[in-house]
Amino acid sequence: MTTFATDARVLLTGATGFLGRHCLERLGLEGVEIHAVNRNGKGPALTDAQWHAADLRSPISAAATVEAVRPTHVLHSAWIVAPGRYWRHEDNLSWLEGSIALLRAFREIGGRRFVGVGSCAEYDWGAERFREDDTPCRPATLYGKSKYALWDAAQAFADNAFSAAWTRVFLPFGPGDNPARLIPSIISALRAGSMVALGTGEAVRDFVWAPDIADLLVRLLAGDATGVFNVGSGRGTAVGDVARTLAVRLGRPDLLQFGARSDPADEPASLVADMMKVERTLGWRASMSLEVGLDALLENG
Amino acid sequence: MTTFATDARVLLTGATGFLGRHCLERLGLEGVEIHAVNRNGKGPALTDAQWHAADLRSPISAAATVEAVRPTHVLHSAWIVAPGRYWRHEDNLSWLEGSIALLRAFREIGGRRFVGVGSCAEYDWGAERFREDDTPCRPATLYGKSKYALWDAAQAFADNAFSAAWTRVFLPFGPGDNPARLIPSIISALRAGSMVALGTGEAVRDFVWAPDIADLLVRLLAGDATGVFNVGSGRGTAVGDVARTLAVRLGRPDLLQFGARSDPADEPASLVADMMKVERTLGWRASMSLEVGLDALLENG
Repeated sequence: MTTFATDARVLLTGATGFLGRHCLERLGLEGVEIHAVNRNGKGPALTDAQWHAADLRSPISAAATVEAVRPTHVLHSAWIVAPGRYWRHEDNLSWLEGSIALLRAFREIGGRRFVGVGSCAEYDWGAERFREDDTPCRPATLYGKSKYALWDAAQAFADNAFSAAWTRVFLPFGPGDNPARLIPSIISALRAGSMVALGTGEAVRDFVWAPDIADLLVRLLAGDATGVFNVGSGRGTAVGDVARTLAVRLGRPDLLQFGARSDPADEPASLVADMMKVERTLGWRASMSLEVGLDALLENG
Repeated sequence: MTTFATDARVLLTGATGFLGRHCLERLGLEGVEIHAVNRNGKGPALTDAQWHAADLRSPISAAATVEAVRPTHVLHSAWIVAPGRYWRHEDNLSWLEGSIALLRAFREIGGRRFVGVGSCAEYDWGAERFREDDTPCRPATLYGKSKYALWDAAQAFADNAFSAAWTRVFLPFGPGDNPARLIPSIISALRAGSMVALGTGEAVRDFVWAPDIADLLVRLLAGDATGVFNVGSGRGTAVGDVARTLAVRLGRPDLLQFGARSDPADEPASLVADMMKVERTLGWRASMSLEVGLDALLENG
């Protein structure tokens, strides 16, 4: 449990997104005043939050939302996440523009603390390791470029006004994930008895449990650490091994077709978070292993 | 002389600013269609340009200007430059926000080429040398942070749409400089027979002739090189030596008071551009030396 000041008012954007829902639940444990934003202003009643409808891609709506809610804290998780399309979608630019208007308004109302959700896609994917303060950023995708530009803009808007931290999230998995994303789509194909077309399966990724991500985001929001923090497990697993684990658990290893599709040429062989800075400065590490997380998904999904 | 395509329409922002005027003159040699923007839409008649009035800090005005002019090329030199105040002024954030709207509109109308004027203030001032692709950026001032964020945003907006280059300008000097800036203020004090209060004079800076800067900016604009380019002479000179040169030329070395004020604690001992990348990739170097430039200023000023 973390501690927010008693007068804290938290604005959570993207509150019904995959990570946003977990953040909302995690914020619910804090007893803090929560203002949740999404496109239609409606969300699950499990957490005691006030809901607001806004299209935050619009600079005018973004500023108006901040001016209406007057939050002391903003956890900005909203962004385009449509599987497969978000890497190059024009909406990334609208999110950048709207988010900048949000930051400007947050500065103007005297906001205190901003935490943004960035991505491992900001790093130079050619690097050998991914460390917040050493590894160069050279985003290969419009998504990565837009997130990276937003963090730089956030540092400008924060200057002498509010405290800001930025997270670079690796590969989230867990309950509520979009059915079209890797793990849910493998699970549903295996359950349906359909063949699962895979590449080589050799790409190594850092899978991190969504409720763990939410825990770190909320701790950061309540705290005052500034700068960039990776959000990962620190452990790499080959995508093929994830598929094999799932197939074995579901008794259908015969359905995996390795080499049935080509690996994306422009994605790196390995993307694993260096979690040293987070462990040392925040004393945090992911609580859920990939294996146990996959079991939990299979039991409850 | 460079070459613009025959259908090129250049939008020059900040066209009556110190660098902007030199850019306007230099663009005049190109025979290209020039659209010049400043606050009141009026400027010198020496160059054949169409003038437009806009406050580009406003996102709405910035977008409207681009939509009205429909430029193929943008040379964005406008920004807050008020001597002494621009480092920390809130207007930096308005320039950032307005410039992003300009970029968004430029993408939407199918613009081809963007060149932005950034600053050596984007670099980590603790670095030993200032190289475009190696030296980390860690801007110490709101001005540097805002310029740096704009370049990152420009890369996002340029993605798959237009070509973009960014310049990091060191210390400009030359005709038309603001009277409150270092060299003009020393000259006018010496001419008036007033004492000139200086710090230690030991800070080493890279002074670069404003018409040379304009030449490089316009060459970049006409070309297609992408990425960041330093704009300097590549030579460092102690500020005290500049003052001594001017005082000797004007016959008043007695007026210099070294140690009469303290040096700003947060500015680096040395700020000199590494010009290797520009020389190698663009074949360009500054034509005017500091000594000859100072003589020219004294003769004509």
